[in-house]
Amino acid sequence: MTAGPRNDRRGAHPRHALEPLFNSVVRFSVAAALSQAEKAEFAFVRDLVEVTDSALSKQVAALEEAGLVAVEKGRVGRRPRTWLTLTAEGRAAYARHLAALRAIAAGAAP
Amino acid sequence: MTAGPRNDRRGAHPRHALEPLFNSVVRFSVAAALSQAEKAEFAFVRDLVEVTDSALSKQVAALEEAGLVAVEKGRVGRRPRTWLTLTAEGRAAYARHLAALRAIAAGAAP
Repeated sequence: MTAGPRNDRRGAHPRHALEPLFNSVVRFSVAAALSQAEKAEFAFVRDLVEVTDSALSKQVAALEEAGLVAVEKGRVGRRPRTWLTLTAEGRAAYARHLAALRAIAAGAAP
Repeated sequence: MTAGPRNDRRGAHPRHALEPLFNSVVRFSVAAALSQAEKAEFAFVRDLVEVTDSALSKQVAALEEAGLVAVEKGRVGRRPRTWLTLTAEGRAAYARHLAALRAIAAGAAP
């Protein structure tokens, strides 16, 4: 996006370290919820983040495709359950993303 | 987006307190930079956030239209200069946004 002499500074601003998938508020909220547990039930995350089943399915699919979230289907008694886990890669990406947000907020004072 | 019994919890998740305009990484970065100063020069913010003049102009126009940023044109000697200020409303919105991000990251442990 930038041409000319500013190019030599390209990449210095911490926004470049943000994980693009977490720039969606819902995906960021899902990662935050999953970061606090070994795994969480789909329905729990849906209710916590306040999204529909279909909206959460769509965002989880994007995170799963990127290797950031793992999806496990099982049963509790007769009821089907879906469990979500933040993978090791997902935890690292989330930690990087949080650190980048904090660095942006801390900023360089003009 | 949500129908049924979950509706009574609607609005509880802190993502609802995010300022939609700050969900753009560049606008968030601009607000963060401006939050640290009474005012900052357009060129300083452009170089800090690493965007083109046109990209910054576009994002600043959106923030100005929403009353979050004020734009002041002047001169230093013969050179035209543009100064950007986070308005009182912009500072409050930025503080709310940061608090919401922190609340999401802090999360409720499943």
